[in-house]
Amino acid sequence: MSRDLAPLFDPVSVAVVGASDDPAKYGHAIASQALRAPHRRPIHLVNRRGGTVLGQAAATSLTAIGEPVGLVVVSVPAAVYEETVEEALACGASAIVAVTAGFAETGADGLARQRAVAERVRAAGAVLVGPNCLGIADNTTELYLASDAFDLGGVALLSQSGNLALELQLSFAPHGLGFSRFVSLGNQSDVTLVDLVEDCARHEATQAIAVYAEDFGDGRAFAAAAAAAGKAVVLLSAGRGSAAARSAASHTGALTTSSDIVAAACRDAGVELVRTPREMTAVLAAVVGSRRARGRRVAVFTDGGGHGVVAADAAEAAGFDVPELGAQVQNRLAAHLWGPSALGNPVDLAGMGEQDPMSYANVVRTLLDADEVDAVLMTGYFGGYSADSGGLGGAQGSLGAAELAAADSIARAVRASPKPVVAQSMYPDAPSCQTMQAAGIPVFAAIEDAARALQAVVVMVGDVAGGAAAIDPLPEPAAPMTDTGYYATRALLAEAGVRFPASAEICDEDALRSFARGTSGPFVLKALHLLHKSDAGGVALNLADEEALVAAYRETHARLTASSYSVEEMADLGGGVELIVGVNRDPRFGPIAMVGLGGVFTEVLGDVAFALAPVSAARAEAMLRGLRCAALLDGVRGRPAVDVAAAAKAIEQITGVAAAHHDIAEFEVNPLLALPSGTLALDARAVPLVPLSPSEQALSEQALPEH
Amino acid sequence: MSRDLAPLFDPVSVAVVGASDDPAKYGHAIASQALRAPHRRPIHLVNRRGGTVLGQAAATSLTAIGEPVGLVVVSVPAAVYEETVEEALACGASAIVAVTAGFAETGADGLARQRAVAERVRAAGAVLVGPNCLGIADNTTELYLASDAFDLGGVALLSQSGNLALELQLSFAPHGLGFSRFVSLGNQSDVTLVDLVEDCARHEATQAIAVYAEDFGDGRAFAAAAAAAGKAVVLLSAGRGSAAARSAASHTGALTTSSDIVAAACRDAGVELVRTPREMTAVLAAVVGSRRARGRRVAVFTDGGGHGVVAADAAEAAGFDVPELGAQVQNRLAAHLWGPSALGNPVDLAGMGEQDPMSYANVVRTLLDADEVDAVLMTGYFGGYSADSGGLGGAQGSLGAAELAAADSIARAVRASPKPVVAQSMYPDAPSCQTMQAAGIPVFAAIEDAARALQAVVVMVGDVAGGAAAIDPLPEPAAPMTDTGYYATRALLAEAGVRFPASAEICDEDALRSFARGTSGPFVLKALHLLHKSDAGGVALNLADEEALVAAYRETHARLTASSYSVEEMADLGGGVELIVGVNRDPRFGPIAMVGLGGVFTEVLGDVAFALAPVSAARAEAMLRGLRCAALLDGVRGRPAVDVAAAAKAIEQITGVAAAHHDIAEFEVNPLLALPSGTLALDARAVPLVPLSPSEQALSEQALPEH
Repeated sequence: MSRDLAPLFDPVSVAVVGASDDPAKYGHAIASQALRAPHRRPIHLVNRRGGTVLGQAAATSLTAIGEPVGLVVVSVPAAVYEETVEEALACGASAIVAVTAGFAETGADGLARQRAVAERVRAAGAVLVGPNCLGIADNTTELYLASDAFDLGGVALLSQSGNLALELQLSFAPHGLGFSRFVSLGNQSDVTLVDLVEDCARHEATQAIAVYAEDFGDGRAFAAAAAAAGKAVVLLSAGRGSAAARSAASHTGALTTSSDIVAAACRDAGVELVRTPREMTAVLAAVVGSRRARGRRVAVFTDGGGHGVVAADAAEAAGFDVPELGAQVQNRLAAHLWGPSALGNPVDLAGMGEQDPMSYANVVRTLLDADEVDAVLMTGYFGGYSADSGGLGGAQGSLGAAELAAADSIARAVRASPKPVVAQSMYPDAPSCQTMQAAGIPVFAAIEDAARALQAVVVMVGDVAGGAAAIDPLPEPAAPMTDTGYYATRALLAEAGVRFPASAEICDEDALRSFARGTSGPFVLKALHLLHKSDAGGVALNLADEEALVAAYRETHARLTASSYSVEEMADLGGGVELIVGVNRDPRFGPIAMVGLGGVFTEVLGDVAFALAPVSAARAEAMLRGLRCAALLDGVRGRPAVDVAAAAKAIEQITGVAAAHHDIAEFEVNPLLALPSGTLALDARAVPLVPLSPSEQALSEQALPEH
Repeated sequence: MSRDLAPLFDPVSVAVVGASDDPAKYGHAIASQALRAPHRRPIHLVNRRGGTVLGQAAATSLTAIGEPVGLVVVSVPAAVYEETVEEALACGASAIVAVTAGFAETGADGLARQRAVAERVRAAGAVLVGPNCLGIADNTTELYLASDAFDLGGVALLSQSGNLALELQLSFAPHGLGFSRFVSLGNQSDVTLVDLVEDCARHEATQAIAVYAEDFGDGRAFAAAAAAAGKAVVLLSAGRGSAAARSAASHTGALTTSSDIVAAACRDAGVELVRTPREMTAVLAAVVGSRRARGRRVAVFTDGGGHGVVAADAAEAAGFDVPELGAQVQNRLAAHLWGPSALGNPVDLAGMGEQDPMSYANVVRTLLDADEVDAVLMTGYFGGYSADSGGLGGAQGSLGAAELAAADSIARAVRASPKPVVAQSMYPDAPSCQTMQAAGIPVFAAIEDAARALQAVVVMVGDVAGGAAAIDPLPEPAAPMTDTGYYATRALLAEAGVRFPASAEICDEDALRSFARGTSGPFVLKALHLLHKSDAGGVALNLADEEALVAAYRETHARLTASSYSVEEMADLGGGVELIVGVNRDPRFGPIAMVGLGGVFTEVLGDVAFALAPVSAARAEAMLRGLRCAALLDGVRGRPAVDVAAAAKAIEQITGVAAAHHDIAEFEVNPLLALPSGTLALDARAVPLVPLSPSEQALSEQALPEH
C-alpha cells in the first residue's frame, strides 16, 4: 500500500522554521522561494527572534502562529531538531521537510536520532522528507520550498544532490525540458525514494521520473515501483568506483550498491540508466515524447559527408544498424535530390539543401515512410540558414525562410509518424531547430547525445529486455534450511528439478564399494563438511574404477578423517560447457543471480551476467546469450552445441529456490554442466546468512521504513 | 624530403577563378573572404564575363590579369578544370587550390583526370590542394581562401569535411580555441595530409594539429610525420562501421582503413584519437597547454557531494585512479576546511565555499603540492557566484567578488605547477571560469568532457605507449621469397631466431621411419602444398609412436597423395599457452601485426591487439599484457606462468621478417606456443602478394604522390 503524499505536495499551508533575512542561511533561500506564491496558500515564516523576515512578520515559534499548519519546513540547528518536529506535529503538521543536517551522514548516533524522529512522525500519521534535505518543489501546485526556482515542465526529479539538480535545470533549458516536481531526498528517514516514485507515477503532470540516488533504500521495491510506473524512469547512478562510494558515504551516509547490481535491476525494471547529468538530459529530451522505435535500423541523414560518416559511426557504436537502403527507397529519395547526393545510408544531400531547403523535409518524409527504417538520425548544418550566427542571413534571408518552411514540413511529417526522429545540428538554437523541437524532435549540439537519446526510445518488440517491464514479487519465504550441508542443498535443488549425477553419501568402505558396483566409473570422491573442499585436497576426480576409488578414499580419509563422503559418477566435462550459477543476497536489492561461463572464463574474463532473482528461463537464456563468450554454447572447433534451453530452465529452478530462502546468503552451483541434451549440476553450496551486528543492521535498514 | 608549402600559405598574390556575385556560388564565398585582407597581397578576381565582382573589376581570365600570380583558386566547372590549371601554371602560379569537384569521388575516370593534372602541376614545380577541396586559410599570413572566417588561435585544422570545420569553430569558441590554419584536404591528388602535417609541424604559430581524415593516403607516412611533429596531433577518425565506409567512399572516393589499424597507428605514433567533434574540442582544449600529468592519480575536488560522486566515477571510467589521500595531505586540507567537508578524495567543500570562496584556491594549491597527486579534476558549482545566471548576485556581489579573487589565486597556483588542472563547472562562461581558462585550466560544462581532456594530457613515464613516440622506418626490402612453402617460410623465420620443433620434410615411408627412430613421440604429420591443411584432413596430431605415424602417413597419402609431408615432434600443448601472430599488409599503413591468444580465445573473443610492424619486443610485451585474457599468461588454475619475454622476442623476430618482405601479403605463425621457458612455433604460413588490378592499383595509390 503506497503512501499518500498529498499533504507534502499540496499542503493547506506552509510554515518555514528558520526563515531568515541572512542570505548565507538556507532558511533565507527557502523562505524567499516559498513567498513566490502567497496567493496559493498561507505561508508562515518562523524565526525565534521574531520581527520581520523578508518584509513579513515572523512568528517566534510554530505555536505562536496561532493556527494549525499543513507543512513545516525545518531548517534549524541539529540540536533542536527533535523539539522542532514535536512542535510541528503538535501544531497539526501532516508533512515535514527537514533541511537540518547532521544525522545518518555523521554516524550511528545521528542515524539513531533520525530514526527515532521518523518513528514519531509516522506514529502521528504525518510524513517527513529528510533530514539533510535541500527542500522540495511542486510546480503544479505552486509549492516552492527549495533554494532555487525550477522551470515548469514534465520531469519529476528525485535527487540526493542539490547542485546536480541545478546543473540539470541549466542543461534542460535548451531542450524545453522542465520540472513538474523536485524533491531533495536527503537521508530518506521516513519518505523514501520508493514512496516518491510511486507518487510521481500517479502524478498526471509528470511525464518522466528522473532520479539521482546514492542510496536506493529498498532497491527491489524501487525497481518494482519503476517497472510499474507506466512512464519513463531515468536513473543517474553513480558510485561505481571505490572513490565514489567513499564520497557518497560521507555525503548522505549512503550504503552504496555495486554497479553490476544496479545495472541489472535497471534492465529488469525498464529503467534507463545514465552516468552523467548530460547523458540524463539527452535521454529525458527523448523519452518525454511518445514516439518509440520498434527496431534498431536507423537512417542517417546529413547535408555534409563528414557529418554523415561521424553520425553513422556514432549510431553503430550505440548499437544501431545503419543498413544500406533498398533500391525502391533510394529511387524515391533520388526524386528529391541531385547527382552529387548519396542515397545509400547515410543519405547525404551534398549541396542539395542549398539548392532547395525543402529537400530536407522530402528526405525525412521518405525515410519515415520506409518500412525498412525504424528511426531517423539527422545531422549537420540544418538550422544554419535560419540561425543568426549561421552567416547566411538568418531567418529573414530567403534561404532562412525556406529552411523554416522545411522545418515546418519536417514537423508535420514527424507528427504524422509513430517513428522517432532525433537530430544533431551545428545550430541547435536556430529557429528551424526550435520548430523541430516543438514537434517532438530532440535536437542536440553533439552527435553522441543524439545517438544516446535514440537508444532510449528503442523498444524491442519480443525482446526480454525491451518487453513490458515487471519485477515479480519475491516468492513466499520457504521453511528455513535446518541443514546447509551438501546433500541437503542437493536435495532442495533436486526437488526443484535440478539434475545431479548419481551419487551416494557414504561413511565407510563397504558403502563405497557397494556404490561402485552398482554403476560404472569413472568416479568422483568428495570429503564432506570441510570448509574449502578443493583447497584441503578433499576432492578426487577421474577415479577410473572401484579400486582407484577405494584407494582415493583411504588416502583422503587418512589425511582428513571427514565424517562422511560423497561418491558420484563423474560427468564427461569435455562433452559440455561448464556454467556457474550463483545467487547472493544484496542488502538493498535482495537475491541477485549471477550466471556465467565457468572455469577459466569466469576467472580470467569475469564473463558473467546479473539479474534480480528469481530469474525466468526466458531471462536466463537472454543472459546466457548475452555473455561475451556465448559462442561457446553453440559449439566451436567441432564441438556440439549445448542445450541452452535446459540450462536456462536449471537457472530458473536454482534461482527460484535461492530467492525463496531468505535464510541463505549465498547459493552456488558450480559447475552446472550444460550438455548437448540437458544439464548436470556437479556441485552445490548454500551459505547461511550470518546475523548482522546491531550497527550493520541499522545501516542496512536505515532507509527501509518499518511499515 | 618534405615539400615547401610557403607558396601555398603565404603567396605573393592570389587570383580567384570563378569569383562571383551570386551568393549561391562557392566562388562568391571564397572571393568575399579573400578580399578581407587586400592590404596583405594583391587579390585578383577572375570571372569569364568580366565586369565587377564584389565591387572590384574582374579579369575575364587569368591571362587577362596581365601579371604573374602566386596562388590560384580554381572554382570552375569540372569540364574546364584542366585548361584552368594549365593557364594558372602558364601565369606562373606556384600554388593552386582546386575547389572544382567531380573527380576521384565519381569513379575511375575522375581519378585518372585528377592524377594527370597533379602530375602536370608537380612537373611545373607547383603544389596543388584538392580537387574537391573547400579552400584553405592561414590566419597567421592573413590568407583567407575558405568560405568562412576562422578565429585566430593555435590549432591547424586539416579536414576532409568543411561542415565539420564549421562545427569545430563553434565548439572551439567557448574554450578560447582558434585556428592558425585551415586546409580542406579534398581528394589529395597532389598535396597530401602527410605534406601538410610536416609543414604544420614546422609552423611556429601552430600549437596542435587537428585532423579529420577519411582517407589517410600513405598512412604510415602520416603516422611517422605525426610522431615526429613535436606537437600534439589529434585525429578525428571515422569510418569504423560499414555505413560510414560507404559514406566516405561516396564523399571523397576514400579508401577507408579498419579502425583497429588506425587505432594501432595512432597509439604507436602518439596521436590522440577521437570519434566526434565534441571529443576533439575537449582534447584540444587540454593539449594546447603545456602541462602534463606524469601518472594517473587524480584528486577530485568538488563543492557538492553529488558532483564529487559523478566526477570520481567519470575519472575512474577514463582510466584514472582516485586514491584516498594520505593523512598528511588530509591534515593540510583540513586547515582550510570545516567539519562537514570531506577530505579523503573526492575532496568536498560541503558548504565551505560559501563560507569562504578562497577555500577553493587553498584546496587546489594543497592538492597540486601533494606528491601523491598527478592532476586535479575540479567539479561543481564554482563559477556560480560570479555568473550572472548564478542567482547569487553575479561578479558585483560580495560572494562573486570573492570567487573572482579565488579564481585569480587558483590561476597563480596552476601557473606555478607543472601539473594539469581540468575543471567542470555548471557555469563555464562565468568570469571566474574565464580567469581559470586564461591560466590554462580547460573548463567544461560536462564532466565527461573534463575527464576526456585529462586523459589527453597524461604522459606515462616509462610506458611504451606514452614514451616519446617514433615510427621506425620500414626495414630495407629483403630479397623476395622464391618459395613460400611451409619449409621455406620456416627456414626464413628460423634464421631470424624463431624456434620450431624438430622436424623433417619427407617424401616416403623410409624417411618417415628414419625421423621417428631418431627422436621420441608423439608426432605430428602434415601434408604439404595443400591450400587448407586442416580442412582437407592433411594434419594428424598426437601420433604416439612410429607405428601410429606410419599408419597415419599411409592413410593420408592414400587420400591426398601430397608431394611431400612434414613430420614433427609434437609439443605438449597443455604445458603452454597458444598465441597467434600474424602480419598483414594494409594498402595505407603497410605491414600490420596482429597478436592474440590463439584457439578458442581468438575465435570466440577476438582477443587480439594490433601494431605497426615491425614490433619491438617491448611493444610486443605491452600488446600481450594488454589482452583481455592476459591473466592466462601468468598461469591460472595451477598452471605455470609462461615466458612472456621469449614470446615478445619471437613476435619481434616474426614481425621483423614480415615487414622486410614487401612481396608477402600475409605472414602467420599460429600457434606460437608460449612455454614456461621459451617458445615454439608450431606452424608458419606466408601468402604472396597478388598483383592488384589496374583500377585497384590506382585507387590504392591515389593519395600517394610519386615523388
